[in-house]
Amino acid sequence: MTEGQKQWGGRFADGPAAIMEEINASIDFDQRFGLEDITASKAHTEMLSAQGIITPEEGSAIIAGLDEVLDEWQAGTLAYSATLEDIHTHVELRLREKIGKVAGKLHTARSRNDQVATDFRLWLRSAIDAILGDIRGLSLALVEVAESHTETPMAGLTHMQVAQPVSFAHHLMAYAQMFRRDAERLMDCRKRVNESPLGSAALAGTAFPIDRFKTAERLGFARPMANSMDGVAARDFALEFLSCASIHSVHLSRLAEEMVLWSSAQINYIRFSDAFSTGSSIMPQKRNPDAAELVRAKPGRIIGHLMGLLSVMKALPLTYAKDMQEDKEPVFATVDTLELCLAAMTGMVRDMQPNPEAMLDHLQGGFPTATDLADWLVRETGVAFREAHHMSGEIVRMAEHKGCDISELSLEEMQQVAPMLTEEIFTVLSIPNSMASRISYGGAAPETVMQQIEQYRKEFLICS
Amino acid sequence: MTEGQKQWGGRFADGPAAIMEEINASIDFDQRFGLEDITASKAHTEMLSAQGIITPEEGSAIIAGLDEVLDEWQAGTLAYSATLEDIHTHVELRLREKIGKVAGKLHTARSRNDQVATDFRLWLRSAIDAILGDIRGLSLALVEVAESHTETPMAGLTHMQVAQPVSFAHHLMAYAQMFRRDAERLMDCRKRVNESPLGSAALAGTAFPIDRFKTAERLGFARPMANSMDGVAARDFALEFLSCASIHSVHLSRLAEEMVLWSSAQINYIRFSDAFSTGSSIMPQKRNPDAAELVRAKPGRIIGHLMGLLSVMKALPLTYAKDMQEDKEPVFATVDTLELCLAAMTGMVRDMQPNPEAMLDHLQGGFPTATDLADWLVRETGVAFREAHHMSGEIVRMAEHKGCDISELSLEEMQQVAPMLTEEIFTVLSIPNSMASRISYGGAAPETVMQQIEQYRKEFLICS
Amino acid sequence: MTEGQKQWGGRFADGPAAIMEEINASIDFDQRFGLEDITASKAHTEMLSAQGIITPEEGSAIIAGLDEVLDEWQAGTLAYSATLEDIHTHVELRLREKIGKVAGKLHTARSRNDQVATDFRLWLRSAIDAILGDIRGLSLALVEVAESHTETPMAGLTHMQVAQPVSFAHHLMAYAQMFRRDAERLMDCRKRVNESPLGSAALAGTAFPIDRFKTAERLGFARPMANSMDGVAARDFALEFLSCASIHSVHLSRLAEEMVLWSSAQINYIRFSDAFSTGSSIMPQKRNPDAAELVRAKPGRIIGHLMGLLSVMKALPLTYAKDMQEDKEPVFATVDTLELCLAAMTGMVRDMQPNPEAMLDHLQGGFPTATDLADWLVRETGVAFREAHHMSGEIVRMAEHKGCDISELSLEEMQQVAPMLTEEIFTVLSIPNSMASRISYGGAAPETVMQQIEQYRKEFLICS
Amino acid sequence: MTEGQKQWGGRFADGPAAIMEEINASIDFDQRFGLEDITASKAHTEMLSAQGIITPEEGSAIIAGLDEVLDEWQAGTLAYSATLEDIHTHVELRLREKIGKVAGKLHTARSRNDQVATDFRLWLRSAIDAILGDIRGLSLALVEVAESHTETPMAGLTHMQVAQPVSFAHHLMAYAQMFRRDAERLMDCRKRVNESPLGSAALAGTAFPIDRFKTAERLGFARPMANSMDGVAARDFALEFLSCASIHSVHLSRLAEEMVLWSSAQINYIRFSDAFSTGSSIMPQKRNPDAAELVRAKPGRIIGHLMGLLSVMKALPLTYAKDMQEDKEPVFATVDTLELCLAAMTGMVRDMQPNPEAMLDHLQGGFPTATDLADWLVRETGVAFREAHHMSGEIVRMAEHKGCDISELSLEEMQQVAPMLTEEIFTVLSIPNSMASRISYGGAAPETVMQQIEQYRKEFLICS
Repeated sequence: MTEGQKQWGGRFADGPAAIMEEINASIDFDQRFGLEDITASKAHTEMLSAQGIITPEEGSAIIAGLDEVLDEWQAGTLAYSATLEDIHTHVELRLREKIGKVAGKLHTARSRNDQVATDFRLWLRSAIDAILGDIRGLSLALVEVAESHTETPMAGLTHMQVAQPVSFAHHLMAYAQMFRRDAERLMDCRKRVNESPLGSAALAGTAFPIDRFKTAERLGFARPMANSMDGVAARDFALEFLSCASIHSVHLSRLAEEMVLWSSAQINYIRFSDAFSTGSSIMPQKRNPDAAELVRAKPGRIIGHLMGLLSVMKALPLTYAKDMQEDKEPVFATVDTLELCLAAMTGMVRDMQPNPEAMLDHLQGGFPTATDLADWLVRETGVAFREAHHMSGEIVRMAEHKGCDISELSLEEMQQVAPMLTEEIFTVLSIPNSMASRISYGGAAPETVMQQIEQYRKEFLICS
Repeated sequence: MTEGQKQWGGRFADGPAAIMEEINASIDFDQRFGLEDITASKAHTEMLSAQGIITPEEGSAIIAGLDEVLDEWQAGTLAYSATLEDIHTHVELRLREKIGKVAGKLHTARSRNDQVATDFRLWLRSAIDAILGDIRGLSLALVEVAESHTETPMAGLTHMQVAQPVSFAHHLMAYAQMFRRDAERLMDCRKRVNESPLGSAALAGTAFPIDRFKTAERLGFARPMANSMDGVAARDFALEFLSCASIHSVHLSRLAEEMVLWSSAQINYIRFSDAFSTGSSIMPQKRNPDAAELVRAKPGRIIGHLMGLLSVMKALPLTYAKDMQEDKEPVFATVDTLELCLAAMTGMVRDMQPNPEAMLDHLQGGFPTATDLADWLVRETGVAFREAHHMSGEIVRMAEHKGCDISELSLEEMQQVAPMLTEEIFTVLSIPNSMASRISYGGAAPETVMQQIEQYRKEFLICS
Repeated sequence: MTEGQKQWGGRFADGPAAIMEEINASIDFDQRFGLEDITASKAHTEMLSAQGIITPEEGSAIIAGLDEVLDEWQAGTLAYSATLEDIHTHVELRLREKIGKVAGKLHTARSRNDQVATDFRLWLRSAIDAILGDIRGLSLALVEVAESHTETPMAGLTHMQVAQPVSFAHHLMAYAQMFRRDAERLMDCRKRVNESPLGSAALAGTAFPIDRFKTAERLGFARPMANSMDGVAARDFALEFLSCASIHSVHLSRLAEEMVLWSSAQINYIRFSDAFSTGSSIMPQKRNPDAAELVRAKPGRIIGHLMGLLSVMKALPLTYAKDMQEDKEPVFATVDTLELCLAAMTGMVRDMQPNPEAMLDHLQGGFPTATDLADWLVRETGVAFREAHHMSGEIVRMAEHKGCDISELSLEEMQQVAPMLTEEIFTVLSIPNSMASRISYGGAAPETVMQQIEQYRKEFLICS
Repeated sequence: MTEGQKQWGGRFADGPAAIMEEINASIDFDQRFGLEDITASKAHTEMLSAQGIITPEEGSAIIAGLDEVLDEWQAGTLAYSATLEDIHTHVELRLREKIGKVAGKLHTARSRNDQVATDFRLWLRSAIDAILGDIRGLSLALVEVAESHTETPMAGLTHMQVAQPVSFAHHLMAYAQMFRRDAERLMDCRKRVNESPLGSAALAGTAFPIDRFKTAERLGFARPMANSMDGVAARDFALEFLSCASIHSVHLSRLAEEMVLWSSAQINYIRFSDAFSTGSSIMPQKRNPDAAELVRAKPGRIIGHLMGLLSVMKALPLTYAKDMQEDKEPVFATVDTLELCLAAMTGMVRDMQPNPEAMLDHLQGGFPTATDLADWLVRETGVAFREAHHMSGEIVRMAEHKGCDISELSLEEMQQVAPMLTEEIFTVLSIPNSMASRISYGGAAPETVMQQIEQYRKEFLICS
């Protein structure tokens, strides 16, 4: 090992130059901005030309050149080099190679600071739109499975203990509702992403007679940002996206956890095909729910990215600091992870084979209609809730003692505890009847769930 | 130390009972829900009565009793006991003491699960409204200071290095813009907080002929939630609030960091009065910016609460699990911390005495009009941006060599580098002229900043 | 609402004074330092006297006075006031009330900065010792349960699917091993907590002829810290403790999650008594594992505290800043939470009633000895592992097809797949034989697990 | 867009197969394990052969084959394919291509679960050793700069306000002390990384007569892990490493923040050469401290990785779950980030040019010897500390009023406040005298700092 290597360590044996290149260059990740960078440059050029800041000929030359560079980027033939640091420099130098000195006019009345912020916002807006499409795709898959299972009873659990009968459809629709809110949250986030920093220049705006409304409109932004320092220093749009992604991923992980449990040998509510599980050559009955486990785990990654960027931005003075270069990788990684999780979850929802017998079997052992009994007493006989609750508990204890379900007790036995009971009580003690009775808005009754699904389709899946 | 103590450790010497009480009881913190719990119970009672589920007389008795309990809660005379576990039990038992057995009818067609979720959403909605008021108060303070300083030059920094002249007003308005977005984010969050879980009951809805739209309306909720399992299992409203609070606190910490730097002896841009700094009896010149340091630090706490609740909710199966009892303390602590930070920051903004001389002095050493020179060359002589940039750099180097500002060089000297320069160049080289020239929308020119302030007042401070 | 209220918001209607008191005062939480503050002051006083910096008489008077204040603190009669800000001021002023002007000599050659750091380290050292005792208590409970269950077969799971038979003891001992490492981690952390900052003074040390080795020794510290600026600015001891606590709490939550699953109706491996579960008056069979759910959830809180303090300390310049006042509450809250979780977990381990039938039943459905068959083929007949693996899979498939366990197939049936099999194979196909065969160090065989337990007792439970 | 594309989204148009490959494959990142995987396999093979589980000839063939595969891996000629999923499968299949069927014997008495854990621990142990070397390199750089600056006065700050004079050396050595503790923390972590899970097999150990102590010793592990389920399920070693890395990165960011401030135009304590800063072609005086800003920001990333893995592991049941595949990328990314930060920081420490004039200038404005005056009064005249403190404050106020330093006041003037002062007082009022007087252990006096440096060299830099 030479002296130089000793001083700098293996990877950085070349000293400062190697270190600075590694720590400064962003081309490894910001090459994803190719389309957005060129699109924004074209909009900027058109505006410069329209405002007479450059001549129409200069404008045309720049735009034609940019289109050629875009072709190369899209074809994957643009060569990258860490010494050119970032995608913006790559595009600019390639443009100069193509159209010569006039390329230098492109950077009039803007700076790297507003350019990066513009590209990032454009890219994230597209990513949000893609994710919104994926969330709708997953929600549609849930709805379609739910539609076939509004009458499939399943244990509604609290504390992992049987509480009341619900349908498999009702359970799945609870997730559909969460995902809808996740989508709405992203749409709200998109509003704040969709503002144009272009024209903020380095930080103070510019003396050139630019028209920021024109570039904003051209790029589909709702408006130009109202303060040039804010334009280059704000990263709350990225933090908000990471927050939305974290919350959505937590919802995905809740469903994934249920899938892991449901597909376990003990519980056996669902079975995944080979497409979404991994077998063991030695234990062919083993179906490891790998995809579900990974969707359960991946939020860790996304939450971590949120935590990271919050720490980076905390206590950072205005306006631009190099710290902010740490903003892109967590967002890219989050978008990729989320898209993968959404694809996997959509696939699993469509793939899983429910096992209604196991669901029913599990439900039956749990006296899930004890509440119905109590509610019937209140509703039909006017007993106060707390008393009815107590009587119902006594009857369950009686059934537990006899080793049967409460629906299997005789009326006489139950009347020992609650003399006001009549034959009619048996209409609420069966699981289907119990479920069918929950007709309050949002409740578990099959027809109510069907209405929920229709409303959901109309308000979320179709209209948008 | 007795055997029992050895087995359980000092604080829990009494064994399981002491442990379970400590781990289960939430009355220590959920006593804050007194108003919301009783308000929701009253709305529920009225609906039960209107729907004929209880008699009008029963309804009136319950409501009158609840009002008395509310009086006690508000007067602070309601006695708390950890054995009664939570605020809901406290209210219910106190009601029974007051009105007897009929109190038992209050819990008809609801459960602890939907009750807790309802209370929490009502409480958080109020808290958000209070915070929104505080954010507007802070923003108004910023605007009022800004209005006096649109012509006070200050160094616009990047990388903590002087870049271009801006005004103190422009810098402060960048924060006003961030705070406005923070408010808008909270308003979007409020929409998702403001949905009613009441009537979801334990998890499956109920067979009682309740009217969830009526209770929702009565409590100011926009609508009842569409799925009863979602109604009791969802906590994304809390996660979203914590995200909004984290992002806002990061913005506050950015301004706080600047205040710490600005008030340091080296930089000296502002001075805090005794009200917002702490002196040292031995070093009277020392003015520790304690409040600013704490506002800088407090986001750690809020971010931590967000991370904590994300971890709790990750991979949690439906519907209710005791884990979700961990949801309230982080939200309470976040609201308290944020309100304190907002009060402190508003106070500091109103208290700080700017020192325009120090700001100007600092700016002058930094050749902040070098960009103006380059831009002038582009604008007036048609030189390409990259070339103009190069010439300007040469002229700065010349000035640095002579130890003067570029505005102090003679035209002849500058023409050695850039022969196309004319006398007119001196109109852009002064700091006031430079600042005044930045008239692009959102730029640093005094009149532009004044327009920004007017638009801000109209759109954010007045209209809402 | 008055003007003042409008300006400052409800809680802070009194303006700056109320805000600063709220944001500055730490007496609410640092009153826990009473013992440590006085102990450290006594050690400092003795050293001042021994070094001739104060007279023996002054020293005696101060120490006697401090003892009186300590009595008051311990009796809970020391009155607290937010205007006196912190515990140090309370003690000092109370001392002055008791012994007059000589009290002023106590603060010779030290400052608030080194005093706070000293108190905090002393307090945390005690807390770590208490937690270490609790971890040993929990580990002992695990060991004692394990000793009765080395022959109780249980499904060893991967991906929640049955893989191989282990004993309940072996499973529990896996946690005992994790907890042991957690204890060792805390002991390593304790080394870094246990260094004395006392005598660092404000930040630069002092010109008084103090003896920092003497105070360090007197307070049980291993050594004085070697740099006075580091002495007052370092908080890595708190971060390290929060890291250790986070990792330990994650281990506790893993076991808690298993307990929630094990105690569910579907799985039914264990049953908690009323002491550690909550029933439902209406569904008496319901045993909500509240304590286990809370131990599962609490790491969220602790992880959040770690994240919070990491954010606070990131990028904080030397030496003391008010930001560092945010260090104590997360540590206090973490210690309290961890002690509660440890008490609850110890209680649950001692309370849970295992259900060996359910464990065995579950195991039998899963062909858990398929690996044994393959291993036997390799070991006894020299077939390569991958081939043996394949044959075993074929035999499992045959058994699955016939609806029986592989141990119920005839030798002839199995020989159709693997002709080299002999009668001897049946000795490895039973669950007890399979388990007994795993005699590799650390393996699942009853005698091996018993050796593991003995080693564990000797190395961790007894020797320390 | 085809149906398939619509259903699965662009990136996953091929449906389940594409999704599962993407979500399951780890070869993209675990290819870094090539050396460790083969080294561990060789040790395992030697043990199998020594124990008579395979023949010596089989053992030799496998080892020779593995060496060839290792050559290919090191030469970068081993071809990777996502369908082969991970590095272990790549190595095994390549081995089979080279040596045929006997390759199948390699996997005797082990499983993927213990193999992965073994590889990961070996890799991390090497990484820790590399980082420890880098920390020593950085510490040496600090020490070498410090040695030249024990007499260079600098303002010791609290709250960013001047407090007392220290030397530049003393300030730098505070960081050296932190870094030393960081190294010691990593060495403690290394102990827990350095245990062998090999032989835990799938989770239960094995019936083959393996010798786990032999493989452990061969691989440099301190011992085999004592419980096979713990062996495959434990990831606390990774969490502990991420914690150590987080704390160390926070220390690096504190120094980086100071460097950003020090190199700002306002403060100007240090200057970076072009090697560690980025200029602006237009503003040649601008030296953006990019590297320092990035070292300040990077802890966000590392803290985020810690947060992520803590969330993944929380509440994860035993033994192996696919979630744990999320363990490697955060550790790899953390090691890479930390090595980069260490190289950059070492470079910056060696590169920075201190500006003693600016340091002294700043110090002189701050009455930094006011404490010395008070201490002199206590020490020499027996005045109580609090009184002396008060007198010193009065004298500072007098100087401030006159616009001079306290050392420029006449004895008579000072005696108006403190009549007991003598000529001798001037010996402590100068900055060099003040600094020289701080001779308490760990204090700021030049000779004391020199002793600190010597002790540091001896205990940390040389002995290890």
